[in-house]
Amino acid sequence: MTFRATVLTLYPEMFPGPLGVSLAGRALAEGTWSLEARNIRDHAIDKHRTVDDTPAGGGAGMVLRCDVLAAAIDAVADGRPVMAMSPRGAPLTQARVRDLAAGEGAIILCGRFEGFDERIFEARAVEPVSIGDYILSGGEVGAMVLLDACVRLLPGVMGAASSGEEESFETGLLEYPHYTRPVEWEGRTIPEVLRSGDHAKIAAWRKQRSIDDTRLRRPDLISRHGGAEGSSPSGAQREK
Amino acid sequence: MTFRATVLTLYPEMFPGPLGVSLAGRALAEGTWSLEARNIRDHAIDKHRTVDDTPAGGGAGMVLRCDVLAAAIDAVADGRPVMAMSPRGAPLTQARVRDLAAGEGAIILCGRFEGFDERIFEARAVEPVSIGDYILSGGEVGAMVLLDACVRLLPGVMGAASSGEEESFETGLLEYPHYTRPVEWEGRTIPEVLRSGDHAKIAAWRKQRSIDDTRLRRPDLISRHGGAEGSSPSGAQREK
Repeated sequence: MTFRATVLTLYPEMFPGPLGVSLAGRALAEGTWSLEARNIRDHAIDKHRTVDDTPAGGGAGMVLRCDVLAAAIDAVADGRPVMAMSPRGAPLTQARVRDLAAGEGAIILCGRFEGFDERIFEARAVEPVSIGDYILSGGEVGAMVLLDACVRLLPGVMGAASSGEEESFETGLLEYPHYTRPVEWEGRTIPEVLRSGDHAKIAAWRKQRSIDDTRLRRPDLISRHGGAEGSSPSGAQREK
Repeated sequence: MTFRATVLTLYPEMFPGPLGVSLAGRALAEGTWSLEARNIRDHAIDKHRTVDDTPAGGGAGMVLRCDVLAAAIDAVADGRPVMAMSPRGAPLTQARVRDLAAGEGAIILCGRFEGFDERIFEARAVEPVSIGDYILSGGEVGAMVLLDACVRLLPGVMGAASSGEEESFETGLLEYPHYTRPVEWEGRTIPEVLRSGDHAKIAAWRKQRSIDDTRLRRPDLISRHGGAEGSSPSGAQREK
């Protein structure tokens, strides 16, 4: 089954952009997923093709009209989840990415200016999603993040020896650090345990480094998961 | 002063990509910022131009070699902060974006495969940065997020009536919802207060909606800032 992505944007020429290269680009060329970027402006209802207007109550910037947004959504809605990239949305997580990647695809609404008329979230099943606690000039790069995260999880994309299960966030912890040759570089050597050939010791070292680095760098992840060791993986359980 | 971005990547052809369009693209064309994408592979030291090797201790995937990464960094290092896009990094915040945008630019290292040999973080002043708690196929789209967030804050980019100060995260809160014409749509009307013309009441309503929506959707932001009302803005104080 092909994962179908439809992006609603004022800048369809931004796509596929980086998603047309490397891992996501190969999967796109092979038909593992499909991508359609549609111009919201094609759903404007006046002859000037207006998509936005000034904020009710005053203030800087422009707001995307709910009637135009609804028309753009209604033209492609087919049961796939509809998401809107917005800093007011729920933070994207690896668990949500896994859910999406296991489905038929997604319709992604990208804003510019001050964002969307809020009524679109009441009148249509649109899920606001945030990729992080910072502000972008529009939703397009966020949509690329969301799609890249999903596409790498599609069957066959990462290859047989998929490295997905041990990565950061899949276990509720940051991934352990990696090393490779040369063994010695600028006086720094690869930790001895990793060169020991003792698989049990290596696994134990990696687990402990995951826990230690998460405690040090991201204690919020540990409290969110109710303790590192006892927690169930957020997304890995869904791994096929 | 031009904000100078240097991206170290295995896929320089991904750039400028979406950063060449719209707000960031206009600013790039006008010389408000500059962007150079350099191929890490040009710094390989063997005749096969190898950039990666298998992980010490075993496991799937490939790890970027520290000697090659160091050569790529050393070739462009000039005092600008050096960041590496990594899920093991510190989460990007709007405050960090403001700091960066006020500086000379950034050097951004993009990984692929399993990531970087950890020694690069010990041997060079490289700051690992994460754009969110999910996994991407590489650092390139994350670098675009980081640069888009910075570029919109550069002087002149958002225009005189800049709408930066009231946005999500600038005050430690989510931004209030927006509305625009039509006043009535599918039986839903713009909240009456926003049509009242009473600026004090409008400001009070917006403040309260910011607080309410943050409490409901992102209680973590409020606890992080030590209470919504009493907190000092995370980034807005640096606003010129």
